[in-house]
Amino acid sequence: MSSFDYRAHSHRRYNPLTRSWVLCSPHRNQRPWQGQKEKVNQEERPQYDPQCYLCPGNKRAHGDVNPNYTSTFRFMNDFAAVKDDQPMSTNNDEQDDLLRIQGVRGECHVICFSPRHDLTMAEMTTDDIIKVVYEWIKSYRDMSTKDFIRYVQIFENKGQAMGCSNPHPHGQLWCLERIPVEPQREFDSLQAYRETHNGHCLLCDYAKRECKEQTRIVIENDTFLCVVPFWAIWPFEVLLLPKDHVTCLLKLSSRQIDDLADALRRITCRYDNLFQCPFPYSMGFHQAPVRENHDYAHMHLHFYPPLLRSATVRKFLVGFEMLGEPQRDITPEQAAEQLRACSETHYKQEK
Amino acid sequence: MSSFDYRAHSHRRYNPLTRSWVLCSPHRNQRPWQGQKEKVNQEERPQYDPQCYLCPGNKRAHGDVNPNYTSTFRFMNDFAAVKDDQPMSTNNDEQDDLLRIQGVRGECHVICFSPRHDLTMAEMTTDDIIKVVYEWIKSYRDMSTKDFIRYVQIFENKGQAMGCSNPHPHGQLWCLERIPVEPQREFDSLQAYRETHNGHCLLCDYAKRECKEQTRIVIENDTFLCVVPFWAIWPFEVLLLPKDHVTCLLKLSSRQIDDLADALRRITCRYDNLFQCPFPYSMGFHQAPVRENHDYAHMHLHFYPPLLRSATVRKFLVGFEMLGEPQRDITPEQAAEQLRACSETHYKQEK
Ligand SMILES: O=P(O)(O)O[C@H]1O[C@H](CO)[C@@H](O)[C@H](O)[C@H]1O
Ligand SMILES: O=P(O)(O)O[C@H]1O[C@H](CO)[C@@H](O)[C@H](O)[C@H]1O
Repeated sequence: MSSFDYRAHSHRRYNPLTRSWVLCSPHRNQRPWQGQKEKVNQEERPQYDPQCYLCPGNKRAHGDVNPNYTSTFRFMNDFAAVKDDQPMSTNNDEQDDLLRIQGVRGECHVICFSPRHDLTMAEMTTDDIIKVVYEWIKSYRDMSTKDFIRYVQIFENKGQAMGCSNPHPHGQLWCLERIPVEPQREFDSLQAYRETHNGHCLLCDYAKRECKEQTRIVIENDTFLCVVPFWAIWPFEVLLLPKDHVTCLLKLSSRQIDDLADALRRITCRYDNLFQCPFPYSMGFHQAPVRENHDYAHMHLHFYPPLLRSATVRKFLVGFEMLGEPQRDITPEQAAEQLRACSETHYKQEK
Repeated sequence: MSSFDYRAHSHRRYNPLTRSWVLCSPHRNQRPWQGQKEKVNQEERPQYDPQCYLCPGNKRAHGDVNPNYTSTFRFMNDFAAVKDDQPMSTNNDEQDDLLRIQGVRGECHVICFSPRHDLTMAEMTTDDIIKVVYEWIKSYRDMSTKDFIRYVQIFENKGQAMGCSNPHPHGQLWCLERIPVEPQREFDSLQAYRETHNGHCLLCDYAKRECKEQTRIVIENDTFLCVVPFWAIWPFEVLLLPKDHVTCLLKLSSRQIDDLADALRRITCRYDNLFQCPFPYSMGFHQAPVRENHDYAHMHLHFYPPLLRSATVRKFLVGFEMLGEPQRDITPEQAAEQLRACSETHYKQEK
């Protein structure tokens, strides 16, 4: 038998951030697909939609009226998952071995990225995306002043396939009394790595390694790197991180802010160009919890896009993935190659 | 302020099996839904479909012809994610701190639950489901004889929303050289609990606790229990487990086999009746790895159904759920109540 080749043979890869595995089956992408097809939203949207509750000047669910904002706009979510006005839970419930419960107070906010109803980040200018980054920074700072908030989760759901109910470009901010499971898991790994690696940061080391190997890099500028991580679960998942150690949004230099916006524009544009459609995804930041001193944290963004082979064929993470472990059909190296081949001029703006 | 009430206030619950949390926002189910609607498949299917590659006597992708089977039928997956004929990987790749890789050999099988193209488990008789259970037992035993297989993951994806591409009632078997992430995590928890609880089994203790509390029980017979677990992520997720300690399918008594089939019929029927539609889900077993002596394992089934409020409105586990932690909108106790209110006569068979 020939020797083992990860480009052809089934294998699993280890994610040192979550300390978990993903199964990779490079040959499996050949199978015919007879299942559900996604709807592609190619409709041209107007710059202003009188029905949209996010457009400037329009009325929202509980009667508030949006200002005539001209760049970004943040407001409290009208259907928040967590609230600040609830009683504390009792400690007793935390002691139960089997039925353990913790109260969670918090706040949920919505951030409109642009007054323009017809845009997405992929079609915005770098200058306009810089304004979004500044809005995230300001939000993170504002939330840090509230003593019942320990973690600020910034994210965006884009596209119907990712549960997004309004195409107006916007993201969310869930601010919580507790550090959620995913960032906590990463913090534990970063700290453990530091202890066993002479104080090194896992993500600093990883960024250097990817720069050396090159095969998984999609975009690079002076201070930021965008790779399909070695352990990616979603077909075209990427990890976007500063090359140098930065704990949170507040610590970015203005140079890094510009570079982050540059990378955001370029990756979202390549995404749209890959299958010539508004590419759905969930994306968001992981960064240090607020206030406390979290040296070990290395801020980064994850992009989790579901599409696999075309604008209509997605990857389903279902049966085996839910009960066994995540499984992917193309290698991260192949995915990076496909994304590198995409243009950084948006397909709608071409010609 | 009034005192903390988990039926009204946001909280998180701890899952002692995965040692992870889920955020629960009881008030959030009120928000209007303007996002993606699921397709409901109410078409009447024929008992035999000449186009279906799973129906008796039909030809499959690579040319094999199905036998004229009359109860269940198992065959090797034509597009397997893992295969037995690949070289072993080298140990070197496992030593890398950042880019760690392991070869995975295995086999993937498909099990047709019935020759009837038009049925699902919800409409099958208990006697016919008993045959499916025996097929699972036989499969597990067959796989145990192959020395490169350590874990047998039995599961079913039902419905297009769960990535299922053929409505003919069938499930799968992925048999692997490695124990996948999810069962491994549970095994670690079961073993840790044993050590700190005088040799008790977490799931035995949990079953007793649920029998005492009653509020989350959906179905109970002499030997099996079906509950919406205290830490459920999906709106109508259930956990189906033997009340007594049973490590794997091979250890079930014939009484327990009958009761398992009874519980399977009753829960899938209630599911279909909940929103009067073929209720999509992924379900599967967690049980002891093959061959080795795994006393600590307590076999059980998880059902992960996506629907939230109707046949067309599902829960999306996206942005916050992927980046932060899973979040649910109704309490497990409310979900159990709704499922308890459903009939055990299938809506299509009524009148
Ligand atoms: O094997 P199937 O049914 O074609 O495929 C389905 O189940 C598999 C196992 O859960 C998943 O990996 C696939 O993404 C899904 O579409
Ligand atoms: O808040 P939205 O955009 O209405 O809702 C969407 O994002 C939330 C946060 O990821 C999820 O909990 C919802 O299931 C999803 O539909």
